[in-house]
Amino acid sequence: MDDIQQRIASSFAAQGLMETLNAKLVLVADGEVQIALPFSKHLSQQHGYIHAGAVTSVVDSACGYAALTTAPPGSEVVTAEFKINFMRPALGERFLAVGKVQSAGKSLCVCTGEVRAFASDDAQYKVVALMQATVVYVAPR
Amino acid sequence: MDDIQQRIASSFAAQGLMETLNAKLVLVADGEVQIALPFSKHLSQQHGYIHAGAVTSVVDSACGYAALTTAPPGSEVVTAEFKINFMRPALGERFLAVGKVQSAGKSLCVCTGEVRAFASDDAQYKVVALMQATVVYVAPR
Amino acid sequence: MDDIQQRIASSFAAQGLMETLNAKLVLVADGEVQIALPFSKHLSQQHGYIHAGAVTSVVDSACGYAALTTAPPGSEVVTAEFKINFMRPALGERFLAVGKVQSAGKSLCVCTGEVRAFASDDAQYKVVALMQATVVYVAPR
Amino acid sequence: MDDIQQRIASSFAAQGLMETLNAKLVLVADGEVQIALPFSKHLSQQHGYIHAGAVTSVVDSACGYAALTTAPPGSEVVTAEFKINFMRPALGERFLAVGKVQSAGKSLCVCTGEVRAFASDDAQYKVVALMQATVVYVAPR
Repeated sequence: MDDIQQRIASSFAAQGLMETLNAKLVLVADGEVQIALPFSKHLSQQHGYIHAGAVTSVVDSACGYAALTTAPPGSEVVTAEFKINFMRPALGERFLAVGKVQSAGKSLCVCTGEVRAFASDDAQYKVVALMQATVVYVAPR
Repeated sequence: MDDIQQRIASSFAAQGLMETLNAKLVLVADGEVQIALPFSKHLSQQHGYIHAGAVTSVVDSACGYAALTTAPPGSEVVTAEFKINFMRPALGERFLAVGKVQSAGKSLCVCTGEVRAFASDDAQYKVVALMQATVVYVAPR
Repeated sequence: MDDIQQRIASSFAAQGLMETLNAKLVLVADGEVQIALPFSKHLSQQHGYIHAGAVTSVVDSACGYAALTTAPPGSEVVTAEFKINFMRPALGERFLAVGKVQSAGKSLCVCTGEVRAFASDDAQYKVVALMQATVVYVAPR
Repeated sequence: MDDIQQRIASSFAAQGLMETLNAKLVLVADGEVQIALPFSKHLSQQHGYIHAGAVTSVVDSACGYAALTTAPPGSEVVTAEFKINFMRPALGERFLAVGKVQSAGKSLCVCTGEVRAFASDDAQYKVVALMQATVVYVAPR
């Protein structure tokens, strides 16, 4: 896991969008990756909540990197598609996107993800979004 | 349509994320909205292409506003969910997200969206992503 | 729960497709419904496995009825949409579709479902499909 | 196309579920397949309309076979996942599922599908369902 942790940290640092959103990689485990996102009005939709697109961006990255922890050595991953439900407004001071591998096949990996909204430093949260994603393992060129 | 165009322009201007992404509202028609997004390395994934999350954000907004053009007077819209396929890397100098209403029901609106990648000022493009979204009409409070 | 169990049992019995597929309602709990489906070559795809459509039909019904257990009294439910991943061929002697409510809002209910394949009477199974569904509560007319 | 038409006709005939549903293959063109489904109470949900699962089964097959028309010679196809919206009750005397290829990549094919409901022998119809599907090309063993 050490290698993959380093590789994911480097890859994450190379994602311009994650820096623009001010998202941070907070956990890389076997089959699970977590990304934190603090509230910012720069990420809002018209009512001041976090835009669905920002919520989606972090949980998409979390699912992709979770898939990468299960990829054959040297492989890359590409998100083929995902579906996401928004269950309530993304209201909160901070958000945590959790991506988990549900099934790692030969060429495709199915992940689920959720985005948790925290009002403060509490451990309590509400799930604001639920994702189901298909990630492709891409052999090194 | 004049009213709705103005209302959508104001709402779009209030979306912090659209400004952060440097996206522009370029067309509001009955049942269709288009949003332009120029390439920026601030929106990249790890290989330098535009991140799926940025692509998704603009087409989500395009679908939501397309739905709004068919909403009962005074209603708001909320994206309940969407699904998006990424068909090829989002390579290009500029992108155009097109959201279209496919079916406007009593409480739900089904939209499809696509994101087109342009290499230059040409009219030629490649479709890099395809969305199918469910938007809820929310009565004014 | 007694009322809702009876109501779901009656509704299930009225679904011609469930009888055609030879599916059985096996569990109705608060926020969860399970439906069993035995293998039959009448439900096959071209390689003799169970067709994705049959797998989908039972887990769609399981999610819809799970949503019904959380609906306001007297309400009906209608599936607005779902997404389903097929992780491996639906090989097995019998299948169990499990639908669970993840979030019950005012007008929409988000459910997840899975279909388990059993080789025999064992308790061991493989998950062959994963669903994420949006169900609408419909007020009685 | 002659070969592929024959191959799809044989494969369709081998799908037990299509026979059980009484579905007929009516068109195989390059990148498009159509399947007809007559109404039957054996395919109903609890209100007597066609069950979402039956609607889904035929449009899933239509998308899969549409993908097959674009597959490398000798390849098979497997549906990785799909998403489907149900826009109105599947009311009608007969239904037509239309699957179309939107993008044929190296290993994945993205299709869209729709299900049209016809009240009678008229050419007029209502679209009752909209699908977006990901199909995998599988090399011959």
